[in-house]
Amino acid sequence: MPSTSQPRPRRTRLTPEREGELYEAVLTLLREGGYDALTMEGVAARSRSSKATLYRQWGTKPRLVAEALRHHRPFGLDNLDTGSLRGDLIELVGRIGRAKKDFEVLGTVAYAARQDEELAAALHAALVQPMVDVLRAMTDRAVARGEVAPDAPALPLLPHLLMGAQVGRKLVDRREPDAGFLTCFVDAVVLPALTQT
Amino acid sequence: MPSTSQPRPRRTRLTPEREGELYEAVLTLLREGGYDALTMEGVAARSRSSKATLYRQWGTKPRLVAEALRHHRPFGLDNLDTGSLRGDLIELVGRIGRAKKDFEVLGTVAYAARQDEELAAALHAALVQPMVDVLRAMTDRAVARGEVAPDAPALPLLPHLLMGAQVGRKLVDRREPDAGFLTCFVDAVVLPALTQT
Repeated sequence: MPSTSQPRPRRTRLTPEREGELYEAVLTLLREGGYDALTMEGVAARSRSSKATLYRQWGTKPRLVAEALRHHRPFGLDNLDTGSLRGDLIELVGRIGRAKKDFEVLGTVAYAARQDEELAAALHAALVQPMVDVLRAMTDRAVARGEVAPDAPALPLLPHLLMGAQVGRKLVDRREPDAGFLTCFVDAVVLPALTQT
Repeated sequence: MPSTSQPRPRRTRLTPEREGELYEAVLTLLREGGYDALTMEGVAARSRSSKATLYRQWGTKPRLVAEALRHHRPFGLDNLDTGSLRGDLIELVGRIGRAKKDFEVLGTVAYAARQDEELAAALHAALVQPMVDVLRAMTDRAVARGEVAPDAPALPLLPHLLMGAQVGRKLVDRREPDAGFLTCFVDAVVLPALTQT
């Protein structure tokens, strides 16, 4: 992913506040109409900026959208260290359950990324990899505490499990993946898979 | 879901062969352009039929698409009984891994169903529930053989797990969910979760 692994350009022309306003305009438009309907013109109009500014700062629509999602920090992943694996997981799924609107936005972007390699790379770098890193840090702590074997085969599959809970709840059960369901999922599937002996 | 639980209307005017041709036209158009771009006009033109015929037989685009998917039987689920739970699961994920194009079609329809309740209900009735029923029959056999406890909390979550393997492989690892990965997933996650003691 060379296009997204480069350092982001310096943004000497925009204050952090102005940058935040532009990102908020992107998020609002994503919520209103999804990724495909979002245009640089629309973002410029909504944020009272110019297309030239957007292209100068972000280069392309995929990069602008990915940076807006990174800046928005859906379902904040900071300070997740409760002292136990189950505690960390329950805290995590509680935050996920409360971030319903964020997941709708992520869904529209992830779907568009299926046919847009630049967007897929930018989305992965801005959101997926940071989430994977947080989960890895969580399980590293569990391994250090002796709760999980360091070579547990399910360790690298934790992100897949959490995504399955989300997608499956909607498609199979036609219900929202709220914190109650996700907590049951953690106890029925995630913890047994991670701590199998 | 009253609209889809009604018996399907009799199709006295179309032969099974003609019906199959119409469904194939739907699948082809889904593969080419996705759900949103598909129109009744397009299906009529591709299958050399009339919009009137399509509306008379299926009523709406969501129903026509759902019936086409049901008829196509993505990743055939028949004859999955190998005599063991692991054998059944490995056979199943082998079929899933070979059905890449079918999952692309399912992805576009499932995404559209997020904002289309009629399509969501039709898709659930035509595809999701039959898949859930097959998985239920598979785990019922495993329970009868004593491989799985009848009250194992992970039993109703098997569909969610398999969806997570698919979605996660694409989004997290940016790779295709092929049979090799899915087999590892079965051994690392699915079997430990189902057979925990």
